[in-house]
Amino acid sequence: MNVITISREFGSGGRELGKRLADYLNYDYYDSEIISMLAEKCGMDDGYIENVLGKNGLKEYNFTFRNTIRSAVYSQKVKVNLLVRQKKVIEGIAALGRNCVIVGRNADVILEESKPFSIFVCADTETKLMRCRERASADEKLTDRQIIRSMKQIDGARKEYRELVTGSAWGERSAYNLTINTTGWNIKELIPATAEFAHSRFRRER
Amino acid sequence: MNVITISREFGSGGRELGKRLADYLNYDYYDSEIISMLAEKCGMDDGYIENVLGKNGLKEYNFTFRNTIRSAVYSQKVKVNLLVRQKKVIEGIAALGRNCVIVGRNADVILEESKPFSIFVCADTETKLMRCRERASADEKLTDRQIIRSMKQIDGARKEYRELVTGSAWGERSAYNLTINTTGWNIKELIPATAEFAHSRFRRER
Repeated sequence: MNVITISREFGSGGRELGKRLADYLNYDYYDSEIISMLAEKCGMDDGYIENVLGKNGLKEYNFTFRNTIRSAVYSQKVKVNLLVRQKKVIEGIAALGRNCVIVGRNADVILEESKPFSIFVCADTETKLMRCRERASADEKLTDRQIIRSMKQIDGARKEYRELVTGSAWGERSAYNLTINTTGWNIKELIPATAEFAHSRFRRER
Repeated sequence: MNVITISREFGSGGRELGKRLADYLNYDYYDSEIISMLAEKCGMDDGYIENVLGKNGLKEYNFTFRNTIRSAVYSQKVKVNLLVRQKKVIEGIAALGRNCVIVGRNADVILEESKPFSIFVCADTETKLMRCRERASADEKLTDRQIIRSMKQIDGARKEYRELVTGSAWGERSAYNLTINTTGWNIKELIPATAEFAHSRFRRER
């Protein structure tokens, strides 16, 4: 079984790279699928889970009269519980024994024993902004400043989850096999070379 | 003209990767050749230049009775002068208009207008230590601690030169097209995939 994992900065095109790579290699692909599997397992709604594991990471920002410390602590427990269950879902995917690409959720560390080929995808701020603007629906009129704040918040949460789950720093070059900067590329142009890297890796592991 | 630049952590195998890549692609290769060209230009000895631009970066560590602040300032001037001349040597290489691989010396930034394909090479400490031990001659009996100190010093100097020349951080993922972690690979296994990345890049630039 060959596992490729993708970690990424928000807006860098990591998800598209993962999807295209899976199509190119004819591998299974997991991204939001993991949330759906988790939702089904917990009898919860996809949207609720995405919201809980969303961009605020483990922090609670809104200590208001109605959102007391007690409710914040409860909310932390829910998050940690969901992270544990998410880990099990990812282990279940690996147990299927099929070649796959998994985007996000620290799958590289969770599946360390399967020796995944781990990729980190980044881009410069302008590239990420452009991608976010393209993806935004017509009624989402965010300013660049708002998008950048949102990007930072989401990447911050990813960093925090990674440190919680793995102890290793998010985006740190030595934590991944390959770091791809998508600035100045169309994602699809990167696929054959990325696949070649993965192939070299899997040849070596056998 | 296609230019590939390699920046690297000391001991990560960046130089070997650059050399093998140049051979594979039939490109010209520049590494210590730059020092020789610079030495010839300045009427100086290769060893002297390597020493001046060596692992202490721009810092002067030895403020002793004989090595006063004044001599330190003079030594800084010599270094900066050599860096300026080195930049000209690198520009001269590009002016030849031939495909080439250049290792180190911030060639990616100096030759920015030639749109080089820029690679950063890293590895974990154990891998780098192993490589340094293999390379060391029989009469160099350094302890691991000494090697690690030396690695840090050399990487520190590279970081410092980069910041001086470019203002951008050394090893920062968004400053390179591709960051390759050589941990767990034989360098030669990485060459076809790396070449494929470079090809995709150069196809795009045309």
